[in-house]
Amino acid sequence: MKAIVFDNSLKLDTNYKKPEPKFGEALIKVSLAGICNTDYEITKGYMGYVGVLGHEFVGVVEEVNSDKPEDKKWIGKRVVAEISYGCNDPNCEWCAKKNYRHCPNRHTLGIVQKDGCFAEYMTMPVNVLFEVPVNVSDEQAVFVEPLAAACEISEQLHIEPMQRVLVLGDGKLGLTTALTLHAQNLDVILVGKHQNKLDIAKKQGVKTKLLQDLKIENIYDVVVEATGTAGGFETSMALTKPRGVLVLKSTVATGKELNLAPIVINEITVLGSRCGQFPPALRLLENNRIDFKPFITKIYSVDDALEAFEANKAKESIKILIKFA
Amino acid sequence: MKAIVFDNSLKLDTNYKKPEPKFGEALIKVSLAGICNTDYEITKGYMGYVGVLGHEFVGVVEEVNSDKPEDKKWIGKRVVAEISYGCNDPNCEWCAKKNYRHCPNRHTLGIVQKDGCFAEYMTMPVNVLFEVPVNVSDEQAVFVEPLAAACEISEQLHIEPMQRVLVLGDGKLGLTTALTLHAQNLDVILVGKHQNKLDIAKKQGVKTKLLQDLKIENIYDVVVEATGTAGGFETSMALTKPRGVLVLKSTVATGKELNLAPIVINEITVLGSRCGQFPPALRLLENNRIDFKPFITKIYSVDDALEAFEANKAKESIKILIKFA
Repeated sequence: MKAIVFDNSLKLDTNYKKPEPKFGEALIKVSLAGICNTDYEITKGYMGYVGVLGHEFVGVVEEVNSDKPEDKKWIGKRVVAEISYGCNDPNCEWCAKKNYRHCPNRHTLGIVQKDGCFAEYMTMPVNVLFEVPVNVSDEQAVFVEPLAAACEISEQLHIEPMQRVLVLGDGKLGLTTALTLHAQNLDVILVGKHQNKLDIAKKQGVKTKLLQDLKIENIYDVVVEATGTAGGFETSMALTKPRGVLVLKSTVATGKELNLAPIVINEITVLGSRCGQFPPALRLLENNRIDFKPFITKIYSVDDALEAFEANKAKESIKILIKFA
Repeated sequence: MKAIVFDNSLKLDTNYKKPEPKFGEALIKVSLAGICNTDYEITKGYMGYVGVLGHEFVGVVEEVNSDKPEDKKWIGKRVVAEISYGCNDPNCEWCAKKNYRHCPNRHTLGIVQKDGCFAEYMTMPVNVLFEVPVNVSDEQAVFVEPLAAACEISEQLHIEPMQRVLVLGDGKLGLTTALTLHAQNLDVILVGKHQNKLDIAKKQGVKTKLLQDLKIENIYDVVVEATGTAGGFETSMALTKPRGVLVLKSTVATGKELNLAPIVINEITVLGSRCGQFPPALRLLENNRIDFKPFITKIYSVDDALEAFEANKAKESIKILIKFA
């Protein structure tokens, strides 16, 4: 089968071995997948991962390796999957809480010990599958994983309706986060450097502002750092109210020294936030609360996968999708 | 009067003008004061402060500038004082909450817009004074400000009795924090590099370990960083459990690049924590829950103040006190 593989270099392998589902796993025929910046980071050595890339997808279950009727019922269903699954050891507190993404022996699709979704076929345990509601298209469903990551903020933090929220960064992460918080009726403003990207959120009702027009003052109860830069982190600290919360959504690669003194002086809480659970994200999609169509820069065929990765690097790109079937 | 002044250089001024209390303020005759690392940082330019240094003291009220009987009752009382007072503008949300230390127009004793306590006389508003319980000696009471800063953690964070707490750093900040959390019946271990300092906490019942003997694994629910170094911050991240809390107690001067990725990947909460309110600290002292006597490296006369500052720099020093009366 065709698969996009990273093995010290990125390549399209047209003869990759089709995976066989282990017991409790489904074989999924991938329809559509999305390139995430993490995929790009992996091609630069992040996580030391080697194998099939990709963790954002929608597909259809073809087979299930199980004799249980409740597992077999997945066959033929259109699905998405949470990207991490755990050891399921009875002594693992994370697996006991179904919080697989913190299990120390976890597998993470296309990132840790598990071939990803950039292939015609993939496998995942049925206990992390979710059916896509009928009214949600593949082009929307493929965004469920980053959307769940934005919903994760609400799992970790109670944001009150009268609090002021600022999202810094107008890339796909910032856009998704601002739209998600807005969809929860919160008072959110998205700040970035690109009017055309800000406009995607603005057209869906989010207040926006160019960074150059923003007064840098520490008046925001919650600031979400979504630039992934050291400069963005410092600006976020300067915008967070004393005793406020700075949500760190992207792994900040600091190419410079950081002064963390404002965190102590203003008693700021820095909240690291990663992946999230899928049900609230699917609920937003099912209720048409966010339209991801304007995010789609281009859809490439799997045969043009390397071109798709090149397109993803372009500054003006938002989301590049790859069609497998 | 005698005062220890920083004005681009540190000096003992024997002819400093005795302060006059403004309306609502008390004139306090200082008995005993403590040197904090912040005082030392100020002599290196921190906060750009110029004036009388010092914010840790115990003294006796001599006069009150007020006609209200409830203010006058402070005369003759042995007192300590919270170090910040606010603008008291009716529109200031921080002053309304008596959380003066976050008022944007605050005055902070010996740090921001207010002469400090390293002088024979000082003034403070009566609304930030606290009477020292009769059974608490001056040598214990002078520790109330750093002790309140340790109590602040409990104001910000609910630490559950079954959670594992690690305090990193065996300077006075780490020792005070470990003893305070231990005094609240929490499961705390103090980790540092100096057996003689660790022993101060150990003799009062705290579990301790030399850093070289500690296995670096992320199993602690709460880690308090009290080293003030970038290396200590990185070690603290490595010790904090996924979804755990890293309490940042000291302003980390980063002389190197910091990788904040573990915060996101493990969804760590970094909680900046500064000064605290005095009543819980006074309660600990009144109930003899912590003995600060072993912290006292030496008590200097105000006449030897410059020598005292030199002694404070020595690595083996814990707390240097200065006697004014």
